[in-house]
Amino acid sequence: MKAAILGATGLVGQRFVELLKDHEWFKITSLTGSERSAGAIYRDAVNWRMDTGLKQSIAELTVQPTDPKRVDADIVFSALPAEEALKVEEDFAREGFAVVSNASAHRLDSDVPLMNPEANFGHLSLIDQQRRKRKWDGAIVTNPNCTTAVLTLSLKPIAMQFGLSNVVMSSMQAASGAGYPGVASLDIIDNVIPFINGEEEKVQQETQKILGDPGNSAVFKVSASCHRVPVIDGHTEAVFVQTEKPASTDDIARCMEGFTAEPQKLKLPTAPERPIVVKTEQDRPQPRFDRSEGHGMSVVVGRIRRDPVFSGVKYVALGHNTIRGAAGCAVLIAESMKSQGYI
Amino acid sequence: MKAAILGATGLVGQRFVELLKDHEWFKITSLTGSERSAGAIYRDAVNWRMDTGLKQSIAELTVQPTDPKRVDADIVFSALPAEEALKVEEDFAREGFAVVSNASAHRLDSDVPLMNPEANFGHLSLIDQQRRKRKWDGAIVTNPNCTTAVLTLSLKPIAMQFGLSNVVMSSMQAASGAGYPGVASLDIIDNVIPFINGEEEKVQQETQKILGDPGNSAVFKVSASCHRVPVIDGHTEAVFVQTEKPASTDDIARCMEGFTAEPQKLKLPTAPERPIVVKTEQDRPQPRFDRSEGHGMSVVVGRIRRDPVFSGVKYVALGHNTIRGAAGCAVLIAESMKSQGYI
Amino acid sequence: MKAAILGATGLVGQRFVELLKDHEWFKITSLTGSERSAGAIYRDAVNWRMDTGLKQSIAELTVQPTDPKRVDADIVFSALPAEEALKVEEDFAREGFAVVSNASAHRLDSDVPLMNPEANFGHLSLIDQQRRKRKWDGAIVTNPNCTTAVLTLSLKPIAMQFGLSNVVMSSMQAASGAGYPGVASLDIIDNVIPFINGEEEKVQQETQKILGDPGNSAVFKVSASCHRVPVIDGHTEAVFVQTEKPASTDDIARCMEGFTAEPQKLKLPTAPERPIVVKTEQDRPQPRFDRSEGHGMSVVVGRIRRDPVFSGVKYVALGHNTIRGAAGCAVLIAESMKSQGYI
Amino acid sequence: MKAAILGATGLVGQRFVELLKDHEWFKITSLTGSERSAGAIYRDAVNWRMDTGLKQSIAELTVQPTDPKRVDADIVFSALPAEEALKVEEDFAREGFAVVSNASAHRLDSDVPLMNPEANFGHLSLIDQQRRKRKWDGAIVTNPNCTTAVLTLSLKPIAMQFGLSNVVMSSMQAASGAGYPGVASLDIIDNVIPFINGEEEKVQQETQKILGDPGNSAVFKVSASCHRVPVIDGHTEAVFVQTEKPASTDDIARCMEGFTAEPQKLKLPTAPERPIVVKTEQDRPQPRFDRSEGHGMSVVVGRIRRDPVFSGVKYVALGHNTIRGAAGCAVLIAESMKSQGYI
Repeated sequence: MKAAILGATGLVGQRFVELLKDHEWFKITSLTGSERSAGAIYRDAVNWRMDTGLKQSIAELTVQPTDPKRVDADIVFSALPAEEALKVEEDFAREGFAVVSNASAHRLDSDVPLMNPEANFGHLSLIDQQRRKRKWDGAIVTNPNCTTAVLTLSLKPIAMQFGLSNVVMSSMQAASGAGYPGVASLDIIDNVIPFINGEEEKVQQETQKILGDPGNSAVFKVSASCHRVPVIDGHTEAVFVQTEKPASTDDIARCMEGFTAEPQKLKLPTAPERPIVVKTEQDRPQPRFDRSEGHGMSVVVGRIRRDPVFSGVKYVALGHNTIRGAAGCAVLIAESMKSQGYI
Repeated sequence: MKAAILGATGLVGQRFVELLKDHEWFKITSLTGSERSAGAIYRDAVNWRMDTGLKQSIAELTVQPTDPKRVDADIVFSALPAEEALKVEEDFAREGFAVVSNASAHRLDSDVPLMNPEANFGHLSLIDQQRRKRKWDGAIVTNPNCTTAVLTLSLKPIAMQFGLSNVVMSSMQAASGAGYPGVASLDIIDNVIPFINGEEEKVQQETQKILGDPGNSAVFKVSASCHRVPVIDGHTEAVFVQTEKPASTDDIARCMEGFTAEPQKLKLPTAPERPIVVKTEQDRPQPRFDRSEGHGMSVVVGRIRRDPVFSGVKYVALGHNTIRGAAGCAVLIAESMKSQGYI
Repeated sequence: MKAAILGATGLVGQRFVELLKDHEWFKITSLTGSERSAGAIYRDAVNWRMDTGLKQSIAELTVQPTDPKRVDADIVFSALPAEEALKVEEDFAREGFAVVSNASAHRLDSDVPLMNPEANFGHLSLIDQQRRKRKWDGAIVTNPNCTTAVLTLSLKPIAMQFGLSNVVMSSMQAASGAGYPGVASLDIIDNVIPFINGEEEKVQQETQKILGDPGNSAVFKVSASCHRVPVIDGHTEAVFVQTEKPASTDDIARCMEGFTAEPQKLKLPTAPERPIVVKTEQDRPQPRFDRSEGHGMSVVVGRIRRDPVFSGVKYVALGHNTIRGAAGCAVLIAESMKSQGYI
Repeated sequence: MKAAILGATGLVGQRFVELLKDHEWFKITSLTGSERSAGAIYRDAVNWRMDTGLKQSIAELTVQPTDPKRVDADIVFSALPAEEALKVEEDFAREGFAVVSNASAHRLDSDVPLMNPEANFGHLSLIDQQRRKRKWDGAIVTNPNCTTAVLTLSLKPIAMQFGLSNVVMSSMQAASGAGYPGVASLDIIDNVIPFINGEEEKVQQETQKILGDPGNSAVFKVSASCHRVPVIDGHTEAVFVQTEKPASTDDIARCMEGFTAEPQKLKLPTAPERPIVVKTEQDRPQPRFDRSEGHGMSVVVGRIRRDPVFSGVKYVALGHNTIRGAAGCAVLIAESMKSQGYI
């Protein structure tokens, strides 16, 4: 199947290129960029920041303007900035394209699936509703904000088995979450920045939408405090949970370790064997050592212990913010859509 | 008054030297060290890590063994490791010395004041009880763990005006909190370590003791998650609070800003003019820019906002971990003791 | 005397504000900025990155457009970008302003003094030639590139006493040298960038101009390799020197330690007591511990040792790149000009 | 063939384990450690710091004391500290073991090959001389200091084609070069340490030995200045070269790019296809992006340009300090020895 990447020169766009360069189902056929980039070959238009090299055949594609008329693809991945995504993604859907978007623009639309596939595979059914309502053949499906992707995957097995009443989350987020050039070195060396614009609201709302039923947000409460730390990749999250039914730390560890969902059952190409890896070492997870677990698609959880405030549990979760938290999640969504006949 | 520093060569010991080098009440007359250091002059025994130079007259003192017979002082500051402190500090108190300790060994003893002077000045009265019970003329008074010092100072005005029901705290702690050499660079560059041995238990227990009445810990609940980040100095803490009485974010900001206590009223030399500095910029406090506020004795608070879980508030607090969180707090305790005739 | 700062909102502009806020001769009366900033009060126009607070009276100045008609000052400090400086600084000089510039635009003009005051105080005489030739009453005087400022100060006493034949220099430069936002955190965390555009050429040419006679560059050879490292402030330089006359490492240490020049003799306000501080510890200088020596105006030298290639010496030099290497040097130039009646 | 690793728990020992875990010729059969570790299973004795997991079958080996009687192997890799290596490696050689050592103890012995295989494969012949002289059947062969390994590989093709007169090298070395825990985070965050004990002497002497004939050091001169920077892995080196015959920058680039040697001809398993990779981007090599080139066995060179001091060339070289600069080089030496029948 032919895949296009909208906004292919940014950091998330590059991650899409890297994840799709040898994908078994999807083949990159179109890359789009800003007016400034359009017309250039990709190699020259991009400031390549990935650790692995840029594949020759992709490097030589000509960057197209972000216009549905100029794109030939079965599936479109959007790494557009939110403001631009708002209109452009609708233009593509109206032209019949299936768009999987990393942008926040449509995440909270009631008829747009906001998906972290292992957590809410069933939300795909909103596509039918979206097509009826919006009268288009295409589709817009979104992946969560990076911090939310890590959080919701770690919460899903707890929600299923014990129910959730309250969730408090404090994040230590990597610099790559802000794109490139993103965070200035003068702002982050020997420092912590305790503010990321709009992030806490996103985490709170998106978590409720993902862990709710299709079209109905969950009713448990979420409070987030989001902070940037001097780390390249990998968001670390301290999570405090009050469950509806009592659960011991062993119960929680067991339900996380054993957790799999449709993407694993369907053996989707990008689905990690173990969506959640539980570490028993007392000082893990750590971003530098654990962010590549499951090729960046697994969430690594450790330090599961009693929480005295909620008589619940607290733990530390870590995930790769530009893979599980962005491009990797979007690719898994596309695979999920294909498996269910939506593309 | 003559001051001794026990364990003067370590990082907290050095901070004591720096804070006392031109102190208006105390003059350093004795420095003690391990067997290996004893007998050397301080300049040679210490691997000086402070930003300001080592004062000539102190550099030339001969390091003594940590033995009450070898120390001549009116006040003794202890920067000993916990295991050593347990017995040695009692030896000193038994010999009549007033010991202000940064070690954790005696912090939870019921007759030992655990003090953050602006938060619980009245706990000094435990000294009388301690002297009667332990039958000594000396005293042991302790300062809190660094993370607790920042937390309790920020909580005190809230506790006074609105009462506390629940406190959740997630820390991002500086490398200097682990002493020197402490955290290996290979462990912390591009990384977060989500575990500090014993720290969470200390924060939970010490916070209740400090904010309780003398001899009776407070009954509100505290849950801590402690993490080390690549920062030199300055602990950042995300705090979520449920108050007993309703309080708006403005109420909280006002009660923090206006907060002063006995150390300010008594104009103690090390007391900062404003114990809590409230920042209104959306991205503060930050360790590199705010850790020196009030010469490292103020706690800087920002991002006071509604918390949806507790229907309370959340905020970010920052304090200098080796000043307010260690040596500076101990010096302020000594000044408090002197002001009340305990030395 | 009234002082204006052109380009006052950038990182060097801010450093000018900090250095001049309580200056005994100069008082900031005008701040200029880009069209976007002009009209705003300085507090709102600037993203203040200095460690010390922004002084109230300066914070409230209205930012002016960078236009000689809008500036009322006896001395003008330029922190403009090079392209803008080229024309604008001439406009100011033509209107009679004495301009001291941190921009590279005019540094190599034969009638413009390129000054590091302790190294070439006598180059001030080029101002007379400039005024005659350019037919203006104002003046343009420039400070060196940051790396050159550190290098030339360390070389000056060697050049005077032993003569220079060859100089090889390899730098490890701080992020602040690139301004703000400057170096992206994703580029520099856990990394070295071995390229700074135009820097090596600047070091090579400016060093020869500064250490030559007024109007005639010196003829010794200089080779530079420039690299960016994850440091906030402070450029470290490995220097290898072939002298004309034989010199032992002790000779070199002595001539550096004892070095003073006109700024010290004239007791200019910004002149450090010791332009060069020689450290004997085997592992110094280090940016975090030595960059503030002499309020950032001293160069700190260590590890003076034999060099087997040149049968000369090698050493490590360190200086504060935005103080001695930029704004501080410019202020010292202005003081030098005033002392000689040029303003 | 059976392989033993002496000092297997340290950072270089771990790198040996990682490089040999699936080696096609060598199979790890013995791991030795200090008295404290001996008797424990490796998993428990080691603080595993590699990015890839510890292989199960190796994790379960019991750590032996470092004693030739307790080791059964065809080839012995030594990651011992220098002081211990001095005697122990001789004990092993005397018992007939072929020892390839990363320790500096024997590097400068005239009858011990100091090898960087692509640079001086012929030095293997010193083994015959060593066996005759020392009257043992075993052998001691050493790899260079990490900085020297990178430098000599980059210099070899230049030496062959143009001859070397003078080499000046200034390094920016990674923290992992100091082992674990090694460099304290408080020493290196926001800092440069311009001193590494004994390193400059090693670079100067080892470079001459490696690029000389077997038993005769080369006579060109080398001057090194060594510095530690906040980088995890990868040493960056600024190199200034005076050649005997004139060489343009293109000449130098060509001779480096085309360079291969016996390890490539023999297709030794650890030999990188291209020993030297030349980058043409103006800002490369960079440790974070280039240290894994050739699985850490290639040296990456960039910025080849004219040097005004030597009328020669200058360039920047980068290599992985614990692979090409330590364990990887030793494994390649062992492969070289086997290919020539020395084991």
